Amino acid sequence: MSDLLDKVKNKTAVIAVLGLGRVGLPLASVFSTKKIRVIGVDINEERLSSIKNGKCPFYDPALQENLNESKEIGMLEVANDLEKVKNLVDCIIVTVGTPTTQGNSVDYSQVFTALEEVCKVNLRDKIVIMRSTLPPKTTTEIIIPYIESKTGLKAGKDFQIAVCPERILEGRAVKEIHELPEIVGGINQISNDIVTELFKHINPNKKFSYTTITGAELAKLFANVYRYIGFALSNEFAVWAEMYGENASEIIDVSNYEYSRSNIPKPGFAGGPCLSKDGLFLDNNTTFSSIVSTAWKVNESIPQHVVNKIKEVKGNIFGIKIGVLGISFKAGSDDLRNSPSQKLIELLRATGAQVKVHDPFVNETSSINEVLEDSEVIILATNHEEFKNLANKIENSNAKLIYDVWGMYKKEDIPSLKYLRLGMN
Amino acid sequence: MSDLLDKVKNKTAVIAVLGLGRVGLPLASVFSTKKIRVIGVDINEERLSSIKNGKCPFYDPALQENLNESKEIGMLEVANDLEKVKNLVDCIIVTVGTPTTQGNSVDYSQVFTALEEVCKVNLRDKIVIMRSTLPPKTTTEIIIPYIESKTGLKAGKDFQIAVCPERILEGRAVKEIHELPEIVGGINQISNDIVTELFKHINPNKKFSYTTITGAELAKLFANVYRYIGFALSNEFAVWAEMYGENASEIIDVSNYEYSRSNIPKPGFAGGPCLSKDGLFLDNNTTFSSIVSTAWKVNESIPQHVVNKIKEVKGNIFGIKIGVLGISFKAGSDDLRNSPSQKLIELLRATGAQVKVHDPFVNETSSINEVLEDSEVIILATNHEEFKNLANKIENSNAKLIYDVWGMYKKEDIPSLKYLRLGMN
Repeated sequence: MSDLLDKVKNKTAVIAVLGLGRVGLPLASVFSTKKIRVIGVDINEERLSSIKNGKCPFYDPALQENLNESKEIGMLEVANDLEKVKNLVDCIIVTVGTPTTQGNSVDYSQVFTALEEVCKVNLRDKIVIMRSTLPPKTTTEIIIPYIESKTGLKAGKDFQIAVCPERILEGRAVKEIHELPEIVGGINQISNDIVTELFKHINPNKKFSYTTITGAELAKLFANVYRYIGFALSNEFAVWAEMYGENASEIIDVSNYEYSRSNIPKPGFAGGPCLSKDGLFLDNNTTFSSIVSTAWKVNESIPQHVVNKIKEVKGNIFGIKIGVLGISFKAGSDDLRNSPSQKLIELLRATGAQVKVHDPFVNETSSINEVLEDSEVIILATNHEEFKNLANKIENSNAKLIYDVWGMYKKEDIPSLKYLRLGMN
Repeated sequence: MSDLLDKVKNKTAVIAVLGLGRVGLPLASVFSTKKIRVIGVDINEERLSSIKNGKCPFYDPALQENLNESKEIGMLEVANDLEKVKNLVDCIIVTVGTPTTQGNSVDYSQVFTALEEVCKVNLRDKIVIMRSTLPPKTTTEIIIPYIESKTGLKAGKDFQIAVCPERILEGRAVKEIHELPEIVGGINQISNDIVTELFKHINPNKKFSYTTITGAELAKLFANVYRYIGFALSNEFAVWAEMYGENASEIIDVSNYEYSRSNIPKPGFAGGPCLSKDGLFLDNNTTFSSIVSTAWKVNESIPQHVVNKIKEVKGNIFGIKIGVLGISFKAGSDDLRNSPSQKLIELLRATGAQVKVHDPFVNETSSINEVLEDSEVIILATNHEEFKNLANKIENSNAKLIYDVWGMYKKEDIPSLKYLRLGMN
């Protein structure tokens, strides 16, 4: 088994990265820039051809740069399955998505597709590294039994396995792959050592913390849930501040000011492909209301809260023209998964409103001029930098009301519109 | 009105502090050590005579030192009402408690007693500073109307008023009165100026942040609720980790390690006179489950969770002898208010268990030897430093089981007892 450790140490081990999305592609690209041979695998042919042409298939300028560098070095290739390269790979890193179903259960379909690929490789003396976010016990109760039953090999003896969860922020992937500490939950010491040596090639000063397999799954969930709850609590504060006719953002500033025990975030939409579902991976295991489920309820309610507040001013909004600025789940991103802005748009359309959307990162949306020209109500839904200087343009539009989810504008900069803001009454 | 500001600036203004508990007494004492004349008022005669004798009526070594210093300077006097000194005082600081009733509503009785005192003073050109923790709108909807109707004076015109909430940790009061920034919500600029000048005598470099009256009430609640939710989430994580047979504290360490987006606290009892009730002051205003109420439910359930876990091992614990170490709500304190340890003891007694308690800070408890000699089950309930070196003594006792709420001991240090710990299975 130390053969693999040696190969990893001297960079002759070949890495396969399964899933070339926002987690897998930056990882594959970064490893290849460290002169390690990487084979990226994905079933999406459009994505593969984009990567082959050196083009990042989603918006991430830093990753695009890294891909350019990778192309020059020539150590990254892509494939649509592992079959052709099954005799080459030594380390398989699984980065596929684990979304939730409409019923909020985990959707393992991508994981099972990936595992089928994994089992094409003769795994003897190889390592499988689970980097996807997983509900607790997935690795010990599903993944290991699956691989063992398909291959007849024994985890921890014939092949190695470790959970090493991703914690990057979208848009900062390349930077954070270098800087963030890695959580490593290997089945044994040798697995931990292999993962450590592998990731040290990214950054020789990288920090590591070690736990059990299930501990690593939980540690990732705990981290994301902790962050998500902060956003939810801030949104709850926003609703309370509105009840009392006060300004939540200002009070949060006052509360945090030079006070180390307070680090309350600002109110706003909280969603996306990670935060909102990671808590469900924990909460799904209990029949009772948890803090996580209550926080989820609060964050998921904020789009409806926005609709309600607009209705308080406008009455029934059936047929009214509404322009929404931003549809992606976070600033500077084109990622629409679990986006509260998108939920807002669905809710508005359900009221019978006529909604137009502009997002500078999403091609299929209307132009900013088209949205501003035509709308009676404007909603600033995603806090893209690109929207910061729009106050004048909004002021000179035909709109009568603006709802500013992120407090991006000042009331006095848009004096001719009625100004509503989350957490302010 | 600038007369009062001048008097405050040149330290000739006399301060009355209403309520000489854990908030009021350190404040009164610290002001007096800055050579400002302070009259401390309380209705508890025992407390007054203790202070008159220079003795802190509760456990707080740093405050005792400050009181010694204050005694030498001789600027602190005490009284059982404001009647006798009503013509002396310029600034009245209200620090009385705002506990909750058994039904979890706010109990304003101490506030109303204090307001009666306040109205004995001719408030013209004086200032009232509310330092108690208050439900939002208490000052504008109750306190100001009360004073105005009793005195015929107009707030902000005839007298000044500001909310300036306390945020000290018990046991660190003297240090934190000097160091923490002050939140100031004055009715007008002059009120803000007066409070600022007054508190600058404590520390000329003190930081201030300004908001509305209600904003100041909310800012205090937001800060405490934010902290309380962190503890609750950690306890929820503990319960989940137990479900998965993992160790919550270790996983939390792994999650936090060098990762700035995670700052998850350790699981343990969370209660006391501030944190658990401050959230209720917000939550009481809604008929729906809030994050705060769910967090409250989690934290308040932990004592029962401890009882349940012990029952899982011992079966019915009717008649069994149980020794509880620690009854105060936090380490190094003798404060029993809203103490989860005390709740635990009540729950144990309700099962029919025979409970003995030792707390080094609480006189009416049994000796450590008496508790250890006699108990079949030991529960480490409060994380007093004094308990840290007891492992050996516990190992050599007759006890068969220990429940370590705080993870103070290592399983291997007490090998002959069964070891249970919050967040570990």
